[in-house]
Amino acid sequence: MRQIQKIISATFLLLSATMFVFPATAHSAGDKLENKIKTRQAGYKFMAWNMGKLKKMLVDDPISFDPKKALGAAKVVQAVANSGIGSLFVPGSEKTVNGVKTRVKPALFNPAKRDTLIKVATDFNREANKLAEVAVGGDEDAIKEQFGKVGKTCKACHKEFKYKD
Amino acid sequence: MRQIQKIISATFLLLSATMFVFPATAHSAGDKLENKIKTRQAGYKFMAWNMGKLKKMLVDDPISFDPKKALGAAKVVQAVANSGIGSLFVPGSEKTVNGVKTRVKPALFNPAKRDTLIKVATDFNREANKLAEVAVGGDEDAIKEQFGKVGKTCKACHKEFKYKD
Repeated sequence: MRQIQKIISATFLLLSATMFVFPATAHSAGDKLENKIKTRQAGYKFMAWNMGKLKKMLVDDPISFDPKKALGAAKVVQAVANSGIGSLFVPGSEKTVNGVKTRVKPALFNPAKRDTLIKVATDFNREANKLAEVAVGGDEDAIKEQFGKVGKTCKACHKEFKYKD
Repeated sequence: MRQIQKIISATFLLLSATMFVFPATAHSAGDKLENKIKTRQAGYKFMAWNMGKLKKMLVDDPISFDPKKALGAAKVVQAVANSGIGSLFVPGSEKTVNGVKTRVKPALFNPAKRDTLIKVATDFNREANKLAEVAVGGDEDAIKEQFGKVGKTCKACHKEFKYKD
């Protein structure tokens, strides 16, 4: 998480400096910001598809439980969690950029909320990794329990840092 | 791959039957198709971000090579490959749906191209899994070589089944 803090700080300094010294590059910086928003949204959307598959086979329609598919889905959740997706949240990307909207709250970049951010991110990372570990075993009940724990970490982060609409 | 064939066939039958028997559900079916296109695009976009990180640290800027980040990126590529993303390619999703464009070629649903599809999909899956295995070892040269092999399987599929623009 220190790394994320460093990246956030470094990127903020870099962006500030860039806009001041090279105003002509503002458009390019906007394109990069736009792509960061789109890329993180892609990661969360693909992860959500896989969380949805897990929910279906573990909660809504247990008869469809398939340990191999559960493992495949859990591995996506784990991989997204370990991908460094936090580096895509840079200051300025809490606003609409080139028409690309985001639901991230400015609170994500509020120094007063840094400890909360570190906690929710660390919690999600830990539980997502556990989910993939548990999924290797193929035990439906154990996967379901761990799936619930991951879901709670998603909600905890959304409550603090994501607008509902 | 048999599973993908079954899903494709079953979905085709289901869609055909649905449109014939319940024309009122056409809008709902369109929404589902739209979401399938968006979800697969999200998967490929997030994977592309991670392939891009690997390219940067292995090819463009080797001094930035970081075995931990390489592993994280390789795990995303592997997870997307093993996620069952092929199930998101259902007949009808080769067209623009609700304004959502796709670059998939109709050839993907051409029975005469089925063997080619199975080959490119199997090749990608195999090489993506090898990439994650090799990345565990942390050997830069070995990861670079395997990264190149994965890239070739991407291109082989795109050549047959994806429009450039």
